[in-house]
Amino acid sequence: MSDTARRLAAEAIGTGLLVATVVGSGIMAERLTGDSALALLANTLPAGAILIVLITVFGPVSGAHFNPAVSMVFALQGALPARMALAYAGAQIAGGLVGTLLAHAMFEAPFWLPSATIRSGPGQWIAEAVATAGLITTILGGLRARPEAVPVLVGLYITAAYWFTASTSFANPAVTIARTLTDSFSGIRPADAPGFIAAQLAGAVLAAALCRWLFKPQGAPT
Amino acid sequence: MSDTARRLAAEAIGTGLLVATVVGSGIMAERLTGDSALALLANTLPAGAILIVLITVFGPVSGAHFNPAVSMVFALQGALPARMALAYAGAQIAGGLVGTLLAHAMFEAPFWLPSATIRSGPGQWIAEAVATAGLITTILGGLRARPEAVPVLVGLYITAAYWFTASTSFANPAVTIARTLTDSFSGIRPADAPGFIAAQLAGAVLAAALCRWLFKPQGAPT
Amino acid sequence: MSDTARRLAAEAIGTGLLVATVVGSGIMAERLTGDSALALLANTLPAGAILIVLITVFGPVSGAHFNPAVSMVFALQGALPARMALAYAGAQIAGGLVGTLLAHAMFEAPFWLPSATIRSGPGQWIAEAVATAGLITTILGGLRARPEAVPVLVGLYITAAYWFTASTSFANPAVTIARTLTDSFSGIRPADAPGFIAAQLAGAVLAAALCRWLFKPQGAPT
Amino acid sequence: MSDTARRLAAEAIGTGLLVATVVGSGIMAERLTGDSALALLANTLPAGAILIVLITVFGPVSGAHFNPAVSMVFALQGALPARMALAYAGAQIAGGLVGTLLAHAMFEAPFWLPSATIRSGPGQWIAEAVATAGLITTILGGLRARPEAVPVLVGLYITAAYWFTASTSFANPAVTIARTLTDSFSGIRPADAPGFIAAQLAGAVLAAALCRWLFKPQGAPT
Repeated sequence: MSDTARRLAAEAIGTGLLVATVVGSGIMAERLTGDSALALLANTLPAGAILIVLITVFGPVSGAHFNPAVSMVFALQGALPARMALAYAGAQIAGGLVGTLLAHAMFEAPFWLPSATIRSGPGQWIAEAVATAGLITTILGGLRARPEAVPVLVGLYITAAYWFTASTSFANPAVTIARTLTDSFSGIRPADAPGFIAAQLAGAVLAAALCRWLFKPQGAPT
Repeated sequence: MSDTARRLAAEAIGTGLLVATVVGSGIMAERLTGDSALALLANTLPAGAILIVLITVFGPVSGAHFNPAVSMVFALQGALPARMALAYAGAQIAGGLVGTLLAHAMFEAPFWLPSATIRSGPGQWIAEAVATAGLITTILGGLRARPEAVPVLVGLYITAAYWFTASTSFANPAVTIARTLTDSFSGIRPADAPGFIAAQLAGAVLAAALCRWLFKPQGAPT
Repeated sequence: MSDTARRLAAEAIGTGLLVATVVGSGIMAERLTGDSALALLANTLPAGAILIVLITVFGPVSGAHFNPAVSMVFALQGALPARMALAYAGAQIAGGLVGTLLAHAMFEAPFWLPSATIRSGPGQWIAEAVATAGLITTILGGLRARPEAVPVLVGLYITAAYWFTASTSFANPAVTIARTLTDSFSGIRPADAPGFIAAQLAGAVLAAALCRWLFKPQGAPT
Repeated sequence: MSDTARRLAAEAIGTGLLVATVVGSGIMAERLTGDSALALLANTLPAGAILIVLITVFGPVSGAHFNPAVSMVFALQGALPARMALAYAGAQIAGGLVGTLLAHAMFEAPFWLPSATIRSGPGQWIAEAVATAGLITTILGGLRARPEAVPVLVGLYITAAYWFTASTSFANPAVTIARTLTDSFSGIRPADAPGFIAAQLAGAVLAAALCRWLFKPQGAPT
């Protein structure tokens, strides 16, 4: 019981700090520069760095998913009971929303304010599917190749994916929801969130299927 | 006796080099560019990098706290005698002040000059509490999850916290004091230091309490 | 049979994601900034980061060459049958071409469009020979010194080589071919590809010969 | 005999590639941007990255000093015969000069051209002494604390030192000599080299003495 509480707390706190980093660094960046590439770089590096920290530190407590798409994949693989995956998703979404609040409190921005940033269209949806598929491949492949490297691999993957995907790689339904409520650099219009989340879940499921074949132990029966 | 001297020397030298890096890179950055985000990036990367170096190198000598808030937390946990924690704090503050001097000597800036940079208000205080709470969580959670990774975790955490906290994450009373005496990019008005330090200590104590519950070994009696 | 299919799939997918990262981050960068150095930095960091991820994750499956010059060197050393090296090269080239397509799909750029960027002349050819020689030295020296570090070493080497070589270090025939079909930041005019590829293969062969001598176990018969 | 040749070749090649990286990335940066902070960042990241690669790869062959000040310290400690330290220094200087040539060949810059960049005065000399003292402390402290981390520690230290020292941290007599012959971003006027080198050697000797006391095994006789 107490262990479950700790696991959900770890998922909520970790997702909250991840969102606070993404939203907060975005606000800091847009206040300091008019160059959008520099702002995105100042958004990318903190996000990649904090992921390494959070996954390492909270990994032994909850597995450090911080992402309903990741919890869903582990549930599909039978590594996490469906009931627990749902509880994880709830904790992640709640934590993410508090993370937006926390960033706004630090930067003295309005409490919660819907974003007006349009992020929609086929290119963006393909990008989110690719971003999430790459994330799942990084995690499942990393767990097979070198489990202790997974925190660094995820941090580096996101660092790259911010730039190579046209959507700057949200790749996370809980973070997507949390980012609908910040009218700043990293925001997304609430109306555009469902398209993002659908693309993320589709990418996650496809990648999990691919990884099941690609990372099968060599010599195992086909 | 000799070991104590070495420990205090390590704390003083480490904190001094940390401050010299923060203050020096800030001066270098503001001399080279007019873009504030680029200057902050040029302040962030050296700070994160030198922390990894200093904590790795001085860790076996003194534990490499370089931060009175960290020494206080270890004292509260009974891992460091209160008397030694006070001696550490003194060495850290003295070392930090020399670090400012050293940066000024290299950049041929005035000896010591009070900063005029205003850093005050609820947003800044919340930011410092969050920044220090995150630092303590990184250290205590890292020590439980993967002790040999703590230097890298702290360096990456500070890299992120420079950007996601509205205050650029001082998160260290000794460094805060040292930064009151540089009238440059990284300075803080002396009158604003007490508010920062109070917020830092509050954040540290709260985080230590949270970590005591969150990182308890699984299955241990509740 | 199934293992061979997996190996070729890993080479194709890995090279495809590498190319998607190089092309995609180049498009993102040139859309966001007018400063060419910032754009190159925003092209460099994702390329270095994704290499670490891809080599770690796909290494146990296929060796993670993603580069016909690398497969050629292993074939010359007898570590990979010539027939398999050719199959690898085919998978790498095909994967790279799909990677360009994938980046274009995400950024809603034209399907495939020949690049108009001139990259030619002795300086560029020397640069490509040096870039590839350095890459082979990094791999062969890394395998001897610390095999588990090779993914990080390659990522860091490319991060540096983007800047110290005048050509921004293509260093890879499959990636060169894929980059002829993007009319964006990272493109290369199709007519200039043969010169690049010849220089890359020459640099690879020279480096392999040098490494055979330089990294011989100490005390081994000369 | 053959082993000695390999060791000297490793020192020459490693120093050459280090210089080619510093000089080459400086030329690339100044061609691409007018912002000096961005140019210095584009000079810093490749230098730090290539150091990690070169020290890891060449470490088992020659120890990977690439720096006469480092070889001198090991000679003073009795870890390297004086005769060999001199041979190392010769190889490092020769390699460095070829490194400048190599960068110029790639960027189609003039063969060798004396730099006109003035780097002189007490601030610069203090900076070079501090930079080299910090480098030696990083190496000797790192060897005691975690030998396998020394390549990363040196790379991160130089990344920081580029910014916190007023001189951008040459910290290496062989590299200083090589940089007198490039009239580009990273150059130094030949007349200013002796002051830099004297400061570097002084910093190295002072740091070695400090480290002898600071990093003595705990409990050893004082």
